[in-house]
Amino acid sequence: MIKKVLIANRGEIAVRIIRACKEMGLETVAVYSEADKEALHVQIADEAYCVGPTLSKDSYLNYTNIMSLATLTQTDAIHPGYGFLAENAEFAEMCEECSITFVGPSSYAIQKMGTKDVARETMREAGVPVVPGSKGIIKDVEEGKQIAEEIGYPVIIKATAGGGGKGIRVARTEEDLEKGIRVTQQEAETAFGNPGVYIEKFIEDFRHVEIQVLADNHGNAVHLGERDCSIQRRLQKLIEETPSPAIDPTMRAKMGDAAVKAALAVDYSGAGTVEFIFDQKDQTFYFMEMNTRIQVEHPVTEMVTGVDLIKEQLKVANNEKLSFTQDEIQFEGWAMECRINAEDPFKNFMPSAGTIEMYLPPGGFGVRVDSAAYPGYMIPPYYDSMVAKLITYGKDRQEAVQRMKRALDEFVVEGVKTTIPFHQRMMEHDVFVQGDFNTKFLENYKVLEDE
Amino acid sequence: MIKKVLIANRGEIAVRIIRACKEMGLETVAVYSEADKEALHVQIADEAYCVGPTLSKDSYLNYTNIMSLATLTQTDAIHPGYGFLAENAEFAEMCEECSITFVGPSSYAIQKMGTKDVARETMREAGVPVVPGSKGIIKDVEEGKQIAEEIGYPVIIKATAGGGGKGIRVARTEEDLEKGIRVTQQEAETAFGNPGVYIEKFIEDFRHVEIQVLADNHGNAVHLGERDCSIQRRLQKLIEETPSPAIDPTMRAKMGDAAVKAALAVDYSGAGTVEFIFDQKDQTFYFMEMNTRIQVEHPVTEMVTGVDLIKEQLKVANNEKLSFTQDEIQFEGWAMECRINAEDPFKNFMPSAGTIEMYLPPGGFGVRVDSAAYPGYMIPPYYDSMVAKLITYGKDRQEAVQRMKRALDEFVVEGVKTTIPFHQRMMEHDVFVQGDFNTKFLENYKVLEDE
Repeated sequence: MIKKVLIANRGEIAVRIIRACKEMGLETVAVYSEADKEALHVQIADEAYCVGPTLSKDSYLNYTNIMSLATLTQTDAIHPGYGFLAENAEFAEMCEECSITFVGPSSYAIQKMGTKDVARETMREAGVPVVPGSKGIIKDVEEGKQIAEEIGYPVIIKATAGGGGKGIRVARTEEDLEKGIRVTQQEAETAFGNPGVYIEKFIEDFRHVEIQVLADNHGNAVHLGERDCSIQRRLQKLIEETPSPAIDPTMRAKMGDAAVKAALAVDYSGAGTVEFIFDQKDQTFYFMEMNTRIQVEHPVTEMVTGVDLIKEQLKVANNEKLSFTQDEIQFEGWAMECRINAEDPFKNFMPSAGTIEMYLPPGGFGVRVDSAAYPGYMIPPYYDSMVAKLITYGKDRQEAVQRMKRALDEFVVEGVKTTIPFHQRMMEHDVFVQGDFNTKFLENYKVLEDE
Repeated sequence: MIKKVLIANRGEIAVRIIRACKEMGLETVAVYSEADKEALHVQIADEAYCVGPTLSKDSYLNYTNIMSLATLTQTDAIHPGYGFLAENAEFAEMCEECSITFVGPSSYAIQKMGTKDVARETMREAGVPVVPGSKGIIKDVEEGKQIAEEIGYPVIIKATAGGGGKGIRVARTEEDLEKGIRVTQQEAETAFGNPGVYIEKFIEDFRHVEIQVLADNHGNAVHLGERDCSIQRRLQKLIEETPSPAIDPTMRAKMGDAAVKAALAVDYSGAGTVEFIFDQKDQTFYFMEMNTRIQVEHPVTEMVTGVDLIKEQLKVANNEKLSFTQDEIQFEGWAMECRINAEDPFKNFMPSAGTIEMYLPPGGFGVRVDSAAYPGYMIPPYYDSMVAKLITYGKDRQEAVQRMKRALDEFVVEGVKTTIPFHQRMMEHDVFVQGDFNTKFLENYKVLEDE
């Protein structure tokens, strides 16, 4: 039985997890770096300990300190949140060895999904659609050329160890390809210590549609519908919503089935997200990757299903069976999330660290704010720039958008620049309001141009 | 077509109404007294005008100024909120005469329901159960004695013009009654200029259960379930929830039907609440009164039905038909509201005006805050003491209570005393948590005694 949970994270997600624990009657242990002494997650947890200096690698990524602390505080489980140690198979394994419950899937599942070409092959074998391309890593440039010929240009070259937009290159001609393979291999060798690359058909205009799944340790798995995260800037998601304006119930069921298959193929346990490329023209979808953790944008799914995903993670970690079947999951209304970051949208989203002098989140019907900010909070420049997630719920998309607009208008954050003005413009942008967009929206429409 | 709405109120309800208007694309005009220059509702409205000095009678109750302003600003509709002009038939009539839409029922319905003995007789005729008692005002003490004999002691003597706990007296014996009638008549003559009293059976232990109704101008009326408001202190509601722990679907349907009958009997239009005495032992209910306005506790109903009651009020005022039938209204989950007042619960709930130095409302899944407070806000001592309404939603009562507990723990209000510690104790009080209480809860259990 889990009674005490250590939260190996900071910021809004640490606060989110502590909230769920409190509501479940679980004791909480917060950890913090030297820069985070005054952070909200430290204030609201039952216990809080400094685990190292400012830099993440010395504190939030410092396994040894975190594991020792877990042992010393007689913690039963560690929730990693997202980022930091969340998708670190080694850390999950260490927890398994120390008999501390890792709130997440097995190290086996993390590893399988964390290596891109292995994940791709595992999915192909499980019958989950993958983008046409090479079977695993290509041997040499010749094999690459042959595959590109078969699937047709443009293609994309991806380092199997890559991530975060690194180790990726598009090729539109054979010449591009030859050069691209060599450069990507070298880059991957340098950056990740692994030169392996594979090739896929490059789909230019697509929506980023992902499926939330939930699985227990008893072989049950369900999906909780999709999230459309197509509004991105340099692969960073900015606005997420559910349902997707492009997905109908039939497509939802198809993608949901594929995502459940993906989860079962790696004996998945807990909450996870299967990301798909959705080609709206052809009404086809392809496996992109699986995030083996809770995601930033999980609240929109909670709003339309009523399921508290963090509580479900903790219940699964406690070996409980899922308390609902696929048929019992209902989707009601529409939810949208805007990420409010401390960045200046008029200066190329440059980070804007500093002290929040005045802070007043919006309230009222259908408004949810997940944040670790407070008046007087000094945003440290060392971690991510998120100030708050603003989530609105409405009976339909129009109401969710109108509510977001009024909530953004009310949101007071003084002392640092934020992305609120960007989101305000989005909520008034005809094309966005009509729901007709893909991941290239911000390249196609210069939302911030006239400033 | 309503395009511009004047909000004849202040505080959280003015903010609530402005929010709904903004989401509907309606322009808003705020009014304020000299003491409310810095109030939040003034800041977020499209236009704001001072309508008089500090005292309510000179500003928020100042018909003439408010009507002139409505005309000058070319306002189409006036939303009165609750309190102030909300149940003033004369003001509603003035709006009718000036062709400005009053967002509420007709002056006829307000008047019928506002005069207690008339309301009682109207309900009796409509087949809505009323507490056994006199038919209208009693002629003299003799008639009173005869009726008390018939219905049995204890009885309650009520001034027809009374309200807010005034002009009410319980009699347990014939002697009590004789004296009580005389004293109540004199008191009512002095306080309300109307000595009329009537007599009802006094029900000692009951739950305060009320039904939310919604009617349009086309003869349609529905109910949106009950609210249990039994946790009161000197007739002031402190905690409200829906559903009621004491009401099952059959009883909900019965009380709902009675409430719809009550509304139809006075050609009701808009949102209203029919309050009932619910006798849990006998499983009977009796009409208490109808509030012909939106109520403080309306958010709990919004949370479980998904219906935005303020938007519905505005749609009805715009002559639209209700967009749903009774069968389409679904009740999902559990919602609870705690009224956070600037009062010291350890000093007999003495008002604690002053400046809010630090203010941080709780957030996260299932938490809603309706408030007009902000850091640095000076609570004026002239109006009500409400700082915020904290509403939590859960899949069941247990989750709503647990969430309330953690949200109360997070809620930061510094600079004034608040009722947060009272609510924290309530959420840990076994009897309350079990849902087993009536309006005498705070007399029976000394929740704050050991401090």
